[in-house]
Amino acid sequence: MAYFTSRTELIVEWGHCDPAGIVFNGRFFEYFDLGTWLRFEVALGVKRSEIAAVFGIVGYPVVDTKARFITPVKFGDKIEIASIVKEFRRSSFDVEHRISNQGQIAVEGHETRVWAGRSPDDPKQLKSRPIPADVIARFSRT
Amino acid sequence: MAYFTSRTELIVEWGHCDPAGIVFNGRFFEYFDLGTWLRFEVALGVKRSEIAAVFGIVGYPVVDTKARFITPVKFGDKIEIASIVKEFRRSSFDVEHRISNQGQIAVEGHETRVWAGRSPDDPKQLKSRPIPADVIARFSRT
Amino acid sequence: MAYFTSRTELIVEWGHCDPAGIVFNGRFFEYFDLGTWLRFEVALGVKRSEIAAVFGIVGYPVVDTKARFITPVKFGDKIEIASIVKEFRRSSFDVEHRISNQGQIAVEGHETRVWAGRSPDDPKQLKSRPIPADVIARFSRT
Amino acid sequence: MAYFTSRTELIVEWGHCDPAGIVFNGRFFEYFDLGTWLRFEVALGVKRSEIAAVFGIVGYPVVDTKARFITPVKFGDKIEIASIVKEFRRSSFDVEHRISNQGQIAVEGHETRVWAGRSPDDPKQLKSRPIPADVIARFSRT
Repeated sequence: MAYFTSRTELIVEWGHCDPAGIVFNGRFFEYFDLGTWLRFEVALGVKRSEIAAVFGIVGYPVVDTKARFITPVKFGDKIEIASIVKEFRRSSFDVEHRISNQGQIAVEGHETRVWAGRSPDDPKQLKSRPIPADVIARFSRT
Repeated sequence: MAYFTSRTELIVEWGHCDPAGIVFNGRFFEYFDLGTWLRFEVALGVKRSEIAAVFGIVGYPVVDTKARFITPVKFGDKIEIASIVKEFRRSSFDVEHRISNQGQIAVEGHETRVWAGRSPDDPKQLKSRPIPADVIARFSRT
Repeated sequence: MAYFTSRTELIVEWGHCDPAGIVFNGRFFEYFDLGTWLRFEVALGVKRSEIAAVFGIVGYPVVDTKARFITPVKFGDKIEIASIVKEFRRSSFDVEHRISNQGQIAVEGHETRVWAGRSPDDPKQLKSRPIPADVIARFSRT
Repeated sequence: MAYFTSRTELIVEWGHCDPAGIVFNGRFFEYFDLGTWLRFEVALGVKRSEIAAVFGIVGYPVVDTKARFITPVKFGDKIEIASIVKEFRRSSFDVEHRISNQGQIAVEGHETRVWAGRSPDDPKQLKSRPIPADVIARFSRT
């Protein structure tokens, strides 16, 4: 099963960069997050702010993530974030992100996320839920 | 009516600083927020994570804020945040923050916040509520 | 003297929002910063990452800022940031920002910034410099 | 060779948490960063803000990182960050972080960092440098 890739561009802001003049590593996880929301919005055809309500979840929190920083990204750089779901499992899924800077790969990222709702036993806790087949199907179409 | 001041110290982190080597201005509003939560925690005798539940509110969002940056604050500086409620009104209040760096005033901040719950008409909206007299009374004691 | 306004749009990210579901107040100062860089980039005709080098400065740090939060901004909202320099003085200037959400004003912001280079006496310190007349002139043209 | 662990505590701030009420994943990389600086400060006996100047580097940027989120961390939680260098190589090293929440492991993190200075050919570029033997030796003592 091959899925589709979402792409978006952004300009690196001053407040994203540290005293070494490069993007602080934690900020890239905001970029990955943005990539994942966009990928879901496009695949599901639902605005990102409505996804939780439409599918009866709280969200899809990250349970595992990693990143490899290949070339530095600096203030003012126009980067592209390309995001693709690589695999769906029962209640979790993997997203891969590639950040390009002037056509060269700058950062590779990976997230494992869980499709999560409120726990029926304790609404303050999150609990994984099976990903609806219809959700998965939409990723193979768009 | 004179209220009390809460004080806390923190060390400025690398990721809080920008390419000019100084704290990015937006980060100071995190420091102010931290000062306000501490002030309430101490005055109310309730853990900050329990305040919303105990008092039946969502929180006290900022509706007006300002800051004056007097001397630069840099990576690794140990700063003190001193926070005091200056005035309570029916459903809003003013907090003043002074950030000191090695004994010198570095930043002055001001927040106006609203005591807010969910709107009865639309639970997705916030709505101001009267601040309980007991809440205000505790600020004159601690 | 009337100056021009720069406008840009962005979608509010998940990581910009707090547990009340609205943008954390400190994040708006990142949006203001972005507005100021864009305004300078357009007026000066120089990429934001080159402005410091081209004009021999470190940047234009904020010395005074304020914001008024009129209506809440939430995850996924598409907002417009409109930024205009209101006044240039010898070595400082004022920028005003208006953030609109679905056509309604949501946040008003104000920054006073200083045109700053390294101090000749101590390169670790920043020092204000006179704003070149040519810089100011470009703001009345674009 | 066994090295030492640095430990520090912090309280999770409101602005670190997302609309699901848990720490936004990117923020944990700020916590890891803080752990690494502390580990170096203690081992080297040099204030974190002086390390770059004392050792003639720009810093030790992260080239590879990962995190596993085991249990949620929420607003107001008092967490402990335990950080240890696991291995030094010629010009890079590995740091492991364990974040505990009320005595339970909540997050495991890993960073590979490079000991980096300015490139002699292009001072705007960073370039890896051999880690001084004396630096490594201090980690086995403290």
